[in-house]
Amino acid sequence: MNEFVRKFEGVKAPWSKEEFEAQIRAIAPERYHDLHVFHKLLHGGKLNKDQVAAWALNRYVYQEAIPRKDAAFMSRVHDREFRREWVHRIHDHDGLLPDEPGGLERWFVLTDCLGFDRDYVASMEGALPATKYAVEAYVRYVVEQPLVVAAASQLTELFAPSIHRERIAGMLANYSFVNEAVMAYFKRRLTQAPRDVSFTLEFVKEHARTRAQQEACVEAVKFKCDVLWAQLDALHLAYVDGMIPPGAWRPAA
Amino acid sequence: MNEFVRKFEGVKAPWSKEEFEAQIRAIAPERYHDLHVFHKLLHGGKLNKDQVAAWALNRYVYQEAIPRKDAAFMSRVHDREFRREWVHRIHDHDGLLPDEPGGLERWFVLTDCLGFDRDYVASMEGALPATKYAVEAYVRYVVEQPLVVAAASQLTELFAPSIHRERIAGMLANYSFVNEAVMAYFKRRLTQAPRDVSFTLEFVKEHARTRAQQEACVEAVKFKCDVLWAQLDALHLAYVDGMIPPGAWRPAA
Repeated sequence: MNEFVRKFEGVKAPWSKEEFEAQIRAIAPERYHDLHVFHKLLHGGKLNKDQVAAWALNRYVYQEAIPRKDAAFMSRVHDREFRREWVHRIHDHDGLLPDEPGGLERWFVLTDCLGFDRDYVASMEGALPATKYAVEAYVRYVVEQPLVVAAASQLTELFAPSIHRERIAGMLANYSFVNEAVMAYFKRRLTQAPRDVSFTLEFVKEHARTRAQQEACVEAVKFKCDVLWAQLDALHLAYVDGMIPPGAWRPAA
Repeated sequence: MNEFVRKFEGVKAPWSKEEFEAQIRAIAPERYHDLHVFHKLLHGGKLNKDQVAAWALNRYVYQEAIPRKDAAFMSRVHDREFRREWVHRIHDHDGLLPDEPGGLERWFVLTDCLGFDRDYVASMEGALPATKYAVEAYVRYVVEQPLVVAAASQLTELFAPSIHRERIAGMLANYSFVNEAVMAYFKRRLTQAPRDVSFTLEFVKEHARTRAQQEACVEAVKFKCDVLWAQLDALHLAYVDGMIPPGAWRPAA
């Protein structure tokens, strides 16, 4: 770092680790997608089965991207210990041979119950283009941003357990077509996500040292919140307001 | 595919799967790095300990890239079953928590015995720039080429078991500083590589359907042979001919 940059960065002292973490956590009550009206409808039992189906179909696009995102992230990491820790995120979603089925398999249990053919779901043909763009923006972000910023973008997992608990309870209580087996994906994430996120949070706190890096990490968490929010916006417009774009899945009349 | 392209490609009929495989296998006796003079010196006991050390130090750069290459490849694959099969390649090199140490750990056993500090090896500071360029060209190739071509570039594993067997026997017989423990990396690869390569070969044969795709896959195997060969060229110039470039590791005088 040259002297000019050092002096410039000196204008803002780095946050303490505690303050840095607090800045990250402060994003949830303003931007996390549990605040979105579509989630409130979903969890509160206000959607019909077709609308829940549209959500599951589109959310598959995001689920499917997660192990690819994690692989892309690992491809940038030169630290073997780090990769050994990270690889279980791929296992969590893809499963692990010979007999762990993984989160995508559990997601198919959900789309099965909502009446979709698995090949149709996996083809992503009926998913909203806006969903695909948001999800791929996330994958590209993880590929292209500085490593610590790419890691930070994954910290929305900090906020996930409460939304998952709310979702499990709300969907079980409110939808006759949802049972415990169908919610297996979210139940599993209640234990997986906290393990992942504490490792990521420590990494980010340790490696974002300058104030500029810390602020970039906070922006990364906001970026990821935007990615999640945009998916619900697209769902809402298409399947609550009824403006389904050409080519996207349409419920039977 | 438009009619013009179809007609153009029609000039050459696709090879049968058997002929396609034969074209790939025919590359080994012309281009695989077991033909390189440096390998003949290495396996024949004609190098001194410093020269073997230079080889192990530089080859670490390649070893270190393999799990990143595999992660980059997986990040492009939308098929979960395929990724579940592929992920063990990462485990093979990185190990798998809690207790499988992995190929990189076994590589360090080799560099330990040759007198290197592990941090120095991992830093890649002393490696030849030409090694790094060749290895990164391979990683980029796997990221950027069509998927079937990227997969095909990994088929040099077809030729690996014989070089590994020759290496184990030759190095054990010829170098007093090499013992069975040190050769553990190569012994493990004797069972890992054939499993990997039969899967990859089936995938490539199944998915390269046009003659143009088949020829691109054959070129990919040649490309990968070039990557391996270039690493030995760089070693030879630096540590056999003695033209060690600035910054690269120098044996103690």
